[in-house]
Amino acid sequence: MTPEEFRVAGHALIDWIADHRARVPELPVAAQVRPGEVRAALPSTAPESPEDFAAVLADLDRVVVPGVTQTQHPGFYGWFPSNASLASVLGDIASGGVGALGITWQSAPALTEVEQVVTDWLRDLCGLSPEWKGAIQDTASTACLVAMLAARERASGGSEHRGGLQALDAPLIAYTSPHAHSSVPKAVLLAGYGADNLRYVDVDPVTYAMDPEALRRAMAADVAAGRVPAVVVAAVGTTGTTAMDPVRAIVDVAREHGAWVHVDAAMAGSAMLLPEMRHLFDGADDADSISWNPHKWMGTVLDTSLLYVRDVDHLVSVMSTTPSYLRAGTDDEVVQYKDWGIPLGRRFRALKLWFHLRLDGVEAIRERLRRDLENARWLAEQVEAERGWRVLAPVSLQTVCLVHEPEGLTGDALDAHTLAWMDAANATGRVFLGASQLDGRWMVRVSVGAEATERADVEELWALLREVVATTR
Amino acid sequence: MTPEEFRVAGHALIDWIADHRARVPELPVAAQVRPGEVRAALPSTAPESPEDFAAVLADLDRVVVPGVTQTQHPGFYGWFPSNASLASVLGDIASGGVGALGITWQSAPALTEVEQVVTDWLRDLCGLSPEWKGAIQDTASTACLVAMLAARERASGGSEHRGGLQALDAPLIAYTSPHAHSSVPKAVLLAGYGADNLRYVDVDPVTYAMDPEALRRAMAADVAAGRVPAVVVAAVGTTGTTAMDPVRAIVDVAREHGAWVHVDAAMAGSAMLLPEMRHLFDGADDADSISWNPHKWMGTVLDTSLLYVRDVDHLVSVMSTTPSYLRAGTDDEVVQYKDWGIPLGRRFRALKLWFHLRLDGVEAIRERLRRDLENARWLAEQVEAERGWRVLAPVSLQTVCLVHEPEGLTGDALDAHTLAWMDAANATGRVFLGASQLDGRWMVRVSVGAEATERADVEELWALLREVVATTR
Repeated sequence: MTPEEFRVAGHALIDWIADHRARVPELPVAAQVRPGEVRAALPSTAPESPEDFAAVLADLDRVVVPGVTQTQHPGFYGWFPSNASLASVLGDIASGGVGALGITWQSAPALTEVEQVVTDWLRDLCGLSPEWKGAIQDTASTACLVAMLAARERASGGSEHRGGLQALDAPLIAYTSPHAHSSVPKAVLLAGYGADNLRYVDVDPVTYAMDPEALRRAMAADVAAGRVPAVVVAAVGTTGTTAMDPVRAIVDVAREHGAWVHVDAAMAGSAMLLPEMRHLFDGADDADSISWNPHKWMGTVLDTSLLYVRDVDHLVSVMSTTPSYLRAGTDDEVVQYKDWGIPLGRRFRALKLWFHLRLDGVEAIRERLRRDLENARWLAEQVEAERGWRVLAPVSLQTVCLVHEPEGLTGDALDAHTLAWMDAANATGRVFLGASQLDGRWMVRVSVGAEATERADVEELWALLREVVATTR
Repeated sequence: MTPEEFRVAGHALIDWIADHRARVPELPVAAQVRPGEVRAALPSTAPESPEDFAAVLADLDRVVVPGVTQTQHPGFYGWFPSNASLASVLGDIASGGVGALGITWQSAPALTEVEQVVTDWLRDLCGLSPEWKGAIQDTASTACLVAMLAARERASGGSEHRGGLQALDAPLIAYTSPHAHSSVPKAVLLAGYGADNLRYVDVDPVTYAMDPEALRRAMAADVAAGRVPAVVVAAVGTTGTTAMDPVRAIVDVAREHGAWVHVDAAMAGSAMLLPEMRHLFDGADDADSISWNPHKWMGTVLDTSLLYVRDVDHLVSVMSTTPSYLRAGTDDEVVQYKDWGIPLGRRFRALKLWFHLRLDGVEAIRERLRRDLENARWLAEQVEAERGWRVLAPVSLQTVCLVHEPEGLTGDALDAHTLAWMDAANATGRVFLGASQLDGRWMVRVSVGAEATERADVEELWALLREVVATTR
């Protein structure tokens, strides 16, 4: 495709995107297809000859739009917010357009240095100390794996450079909350610790936050048995209820055993942008690694996850490989992000953060986050005040966990009711909610924070919920 | 940013990209900045208030363009091709515009199923059996790590679900070529095998391809010592010289010990699209995993790496985590790509492959690859025919490894000469070449394959090389 052909198609695509985004509020929120429906709509072999751009564009409407849950919809309250702000989309467009290859500083100095600049910006905006250095990862899952590897290598004195994990005498142990995101046990298992060496530490029965005394006891028991506490993952903003593990106390306990502390603030991290919310992250500045995802609530389009570490030299010692074909005279003067994570090649992802922050401005981003916090508090108040409804966990951020408990309904019957009214609400196409289990029972999570969601939308949601429970009894 | 503001800015950006791509041939190929120069050009804090799009756009010219090596330039012969075809860029633009969240099939069925369709298309185009199933990874580095984890878990009978690698009695051993990409030892180390358990198998002194008899001896020695051969990574297209490890023979040897075979064809994989080149991949269809990068020679914009496996159930058993908040009634009927790799969240990367194949058509892509193979052969012939020049390794694909050897020059002096004339060529701004070490000495790699590179460009390159050696003696 020539630049001139691209120009024509690109303009059409920009118009399509602008039109699409403008009409998202009129679309059903949940994807509208059955398993296999999209596959069946597509040919089973690739086209030998070029197709017209019009045909491809038409397939966005025919195949793609009905086949995705509209996370940009004002009625999207599922999982966690997954905002794809248009300012950041422009940065992502520029990334592909520039067509840079990020394998070393030398291959694209601007790709490296803009990433340094924007990760420093965000560190400072979050109130973290300047000792922290950050890099963009694809997701918090990958960032957590990188942290588990860094912790493994610190606790084992660099075992990867010798006999590996399989040569260790005393097993390394990882600790986390049972409410931590599923990517945490996954990262621990992939890093080779083994499920037997993963401890789920007890949580407070009301706040669902990790109990640091339980952590202390678990570590002491492992040490007594000849095992090595290697890492604690503090879930700061759990996926179910956004419970905030107490990082300060966790760091204190972990330090006694030299264990690495990784703060997984994938969702909650955006709240660090608000000075008045930083008390929830107390102690995070003294951890060893922190990850959070601007691609969630803050709204930089996927995939934009940040991983900050204090000891870059250690991370590089774990991740570095420098063959002759990647050597250069300037190696000592520059950052080589290939040594800060798993992939060698990187896209110019810093552009989407750079564009997002510059085109929206930090003040407007903060105001939006505050709006969402207020909307969640408002909803929680309505729920608490309404007979038969209950908020199940502290609303520390923008997620409200709730159930509707008709008199006399308990156990499996209550679970069935919960899932039924949620499905009924989702079936209207006006909202999308998700369910999750807490203490063995289903609850509904209302995760406020789509960029488009205003107070009026939350009011509509609340009216809708009261409506659907009345009709699904 | 509203859709209407996006529309205005987006049109301006599309024009900028079209103009930029059209003028790339006039730009110097190598990045033009010194370490720290880009950082120094940017403010140290994020903007509180929105900036004009014009200011951001201007920074693409001021900061970004001089700060990247122009891999889309017809004179780009560095590392490996890193084509960012404009057809695929359109697909990537659509991805951000749609703003879908890929965490489960349910969150975006189209994201999952288009990925199934295009990975099937490419599997068939490469002549692989329908048993292979693929997923998009960010890079071959990550794909290799996933393969090392899958191999580790197969050889250890699922140790991650018990005591982990640290509980094994007999160490697992990994084998690869000393010419394998640096991401291979990195993946082996990160997966926990340990450097002591990584064997670099001898290669043929002329072809630089792995010697399967040496592999057989190495495995036998490990077995005799009570160790377990777990995985072989066949480098099919090594980074230095594009040597092709003989997969058929490697598979035969590995099978004797039940070891996993991963085919790392990151660069060379594009050649599987050409039936006449498939003999180089003989045996790959019988391996356990294959990865290759459409984001290299084929030209789908970064990050588009493919990982195919034969035993999806095994991969899922290694990678799966399904907490309650990700459960859905359709789980048995659909593919959950979260269980095929490390990250949970995925972008709609399938769109860029889909757009690329449809808008360019497979025939044109094949013709371009054939053009590059012919250009590389032509260059190799010129080099071989010219007094004082030498081609150092078989030109199996599109990369020509060469030296200029003035009479009487050897050892370090020859190395200095090699790097000097390469630097002189790069300093013209008309071409970009890279150096690599082979048998302890520097050589220059001419990796043909930028989308824009025609025969006339390679002729110009060859004229330039003869010019610069004359002036750098």
